[in-house]
Amino acid sequence: MKKADVVILGGLSGISAGMSCKRHYPDKKVILVRKEGTVLIPCGIPYIYGTVGGPENNVIPDGLLETLGIELVRGEAVDVDREKKTIAMKNGDMIEYDKLVFATGSVPLVPPIPGVDKKNVYAVKKEFDYLSDVYRAMQDVKDLVIIGGGFIGMEFADECRKGRDVNVTVVEAMPHCLQAAMDDEFCELAQEKLQEAGVNILVNETVESILGDGEVTGVKLANGNEIKADMVILGTGAVPNTELAKRAGLELGFRNTIRVDRYMRSYTDPNVFACGDCAEKESFFDGKPSGVMLASIATSEARIAGANLFSPTHHNSGVISVFSTVINGMAFGVAGLTERCSEQVGAKIIITTAEAPDTHPGGMPNSCNTKVKLIFSKDTGVILGGSICGGKPVGEMINVVSACIMHKMTADDIVKFQMGTHPALTSSPIMYPIVNAACKAVLPLKGCE
Amino acid sequence: MKKADVVILGGLSGISAGMSCKRHYPDKKVILVRKEGTVLIPCGIPYIYGTVGGPENNVIPDGLLETLGIELVRGEAVDVDREKKTIAMKNGDMIEYDKLVFATGSVPLVPPIPGVDKKNVYAVKKEFDYLSDVYRAMQDVKDLVIIGGGFIGMEFADECRKGRDVNVTVVEAMPHCLQAAMDDEFCELAQEKLQEAGVNILVNETVESILGDGEVTGVKLANGNEIKADMVILGTGAVPNTELAKRAGLELGFRNTIRVDRYMRSYTDPNVFACGDCAEKESFFDGKPSGVMLASIATSEARIAGANLFSPTHHNSGVISVFSTVINGMAFGVAGLTERCSEQVGAKIIITTAEAPDTHPGGMPNSCNTKVKLIFSKDTGVILGGSICGGKPVGEMINVVSACIMHKMTADDIVKFQMGTHPALTSSPIMYPIVNAACKAVLPLKGCE
Repeated sequence: MKKADVVILGGLSGISAGMSCKRHYPDKKVILVRKEGTVLIPCGIPYIYGTVGGPENNVIPDGLLETLGIELVRGEAVDVDREKKTIAMKNGDMIEYDKLVFATGSVPLVPPIPGVDKKNVYAVKKEFDYLSDVYRAMQDVKDLVIIGGGFIGMEFADECRKGRDVNVTVVEAMPHCLQAAMDDEFCELAQEKLQEAGVNILVNETVESILGDGEVTGVKLANGNEIKADMVILGTGAVPNTELAKRAGLELGFRNTIRVDRYMRSYTDPNVFACGDCAEKESFFDGKPSGVMLASIATSEARIAGANLFSPTHHNSGVISVFSTVINGMAFGVAGLTERCSEQVGAKIIITTAEAPDTHPGGMPNSCNTKVKLIFSKDTGVILGGSICGGKPVGEMINVVSACIMHKMTADDIVKFQMGTHPALTSSPIMYPIVNAACKAVLPLKGCE
Repeated sequence: MKKADVVILGGLSGISAGMSCKRHYPDKKVILVRKEGTVLIPCGIPYIYGTVGGPENNVIPDGLLETLGIELVRGEAVDVDREKKTIAMKNGDMIEYDKLVFATGSVPLVPPIPGVDKKNVYAVKKEFDYLSDVYRAMQDVKDLVIIGGGFIGMEFADECRKGRDVNVTVVEAMPHCLQAAMDDEFCELAQEKLQEAGVNILVNETVESILGDGEVTGVKLANGNEIKADMVILGTGAVPNTELAKRAGLELGFRNTIRVDRYMRSYTDPNVFACGDCAEKESFFDGKPSGVMLASIATSEARIAGANLFSPTHHNSGVISVFSTVINGMAFGVAGLTERCSEQVGAKIIITTAEAPDTHPGGMPNSCNTKVKLIFSKDTGVILGGSICGGKPVGEMINVVSACIMHKMTADDIVKFQMGTHPALTSSPIMYPIVNAACKAVLPLKGCE
């Protein structure tokens, strides 16, 4: 029987948890158990089908594990005996642990649409061989239908069209694509950008059935229309991978995630931790459960879990939810609450906007207009969220907003924010839109507007 | 006699002060007095000579002033009578004020080198007509010598070579170019990048005299060597433009800047404010006077000054000093203390570094390796500074570091920083170098390393 101080079950956040554990407890023996031979960069998956050119260019090298002295065990854990502190592997092996970390992630939600099991209908599993099959199948596709206009759906639509002569249609049930993530005006911009690239977008529309005789030939919409399709991608969300945790008797919470405390320790067993998509999350803002699944949150939680295994060290302050995407060359980022979220929780807010080119003067090469929308609490002036669209710098600008949120900066603080500026890299110091949006928020706080 | 509630003397930060004043006191009459017909974006000046293609493409439009109802008076203020609260203009006009703001900026320091007054020797004045003359003269230049390898010198060297068949030499008295701003390893990288572009760099070298009979023909170095030159640019720093303030009896402080309190109000006169390069600055870290001159600091101070004119509103917490530059396509950013600065103030520090591509996978198009160096206080773990080099996102990454500094985040806080990540926009969530550098700093704090 193998034996380790720490056994980690999982992929991406498993690596982060292992790194963090080894940093804090260098003498502990750590085993990472993983079903997959190769771990993919999860947020890179849509890019396999366009920019990156194949799944082999989107893998996380395992060299790091070796360097850190973490043993990699390839195989599937099928049972956990928490009393004996052992893990049963599918091949019959047993592994003994002192501390166990669930970093088992999520699996795609497959909607119960009739015909969803037909050939060439694919969910977006984070599995190398599976995604390689999709890659091969993609090469001959003429008519691609993507069900669901969330991040996965929109990014797939944008990428699959690149370098291919393919009709791409996104079918979204809500009034806007990306609606769960962004406010309407940004959703509309993203849709326009994708439409400019030739992608068909149907909103307020659902797929009633997937057509075809074995192999998919089209989808039938609820309105009766049919769309031709020789491939269907399901971008309809994900559910936590917590079957094993459940069998192990761990208490599950919101949407079947493993219930954890702020140290990422399971409610049920002080020797079992969880992080990432399989772990329950609380909102940074109101402490209520959050259903956000992001690789950046997963790795952050993994760092916390790894540090806390043998002594409480780091504390999880809850999910701010910071993400970014690119749609046909335009970058979008959101941190914290959107206007929609704020309304849903009934927050009294101030909304301000500002825009500026991301160079100065605006005539510099590759200059891109940047739009910033900030949300502040009306009573306290504390920043609750920000949305940005523009060029490549948006990816880090939204992290500036995240830092402001994390430290509960007020509009007044952000007015005095000391940003560096440079002609080729940022907006001008007069126009810097995060600061200018904050300026606009200060006055209503003082009753002047 | 003209009369206004607020008179602002100056250029760029004058516009920001005016905007801020109008935001906070919309009913006040504001006059902006400016010698220059056209205001240039100051940090864009080197780019006039390359990327931007001429001074006319680097101006701040005055339309904003009109929109805000700020009256623009073109002319030179020559005297201030603080008792009568009047300003005498060069053309004999008088303007009466209730509150006066000095936003008079800085002027280039012209070093007392023999021959510095020869034709085709130029300081970098922020004057449209002057810089237009330099632009015209630049077109036929074959051998350009730049004295001083600070930001202005290095950016000029990088830009002037673009699209021109010109030999460019930078002469720097210190062991490294950019040494006042960055640590050695970053200075060396910047030098290498510029050398790759064909620029000659001489360090530890001073210019003893400027040669030529009326028109410059070369420079003579202290080591006796001569370098051919048909143009010389002086990149030897700037001094505050405070002659008028001095004549007005305002107390001057560090390096002849106008002494101001934390509300940007002059020590001498509660009705007189100052902001930008002409105003005294304190370090955010130790409260000592700071000689940093940056457009982003100037506009930040201008916002504070404008808000405080009739009621103390915003408080200046001191200069963090955040800046960025681009040298032959590589971006550099620094926020707060460098290793060198920390040593100079005798701070006990922890230095950590991390690097990662700014996309994930690294094979995405336009991916660029990013190097991050963070400085933390050894005793408290609070972040004191950061230096970054890499691609375009560095401009906003350094602002993430600035936000961390502003809120005195500890390494422990930054470990838990919730950054958004995206394949095309940022490093991967496992590798995000600001967080990973912070991770490395946490352990020595705990005595584990």
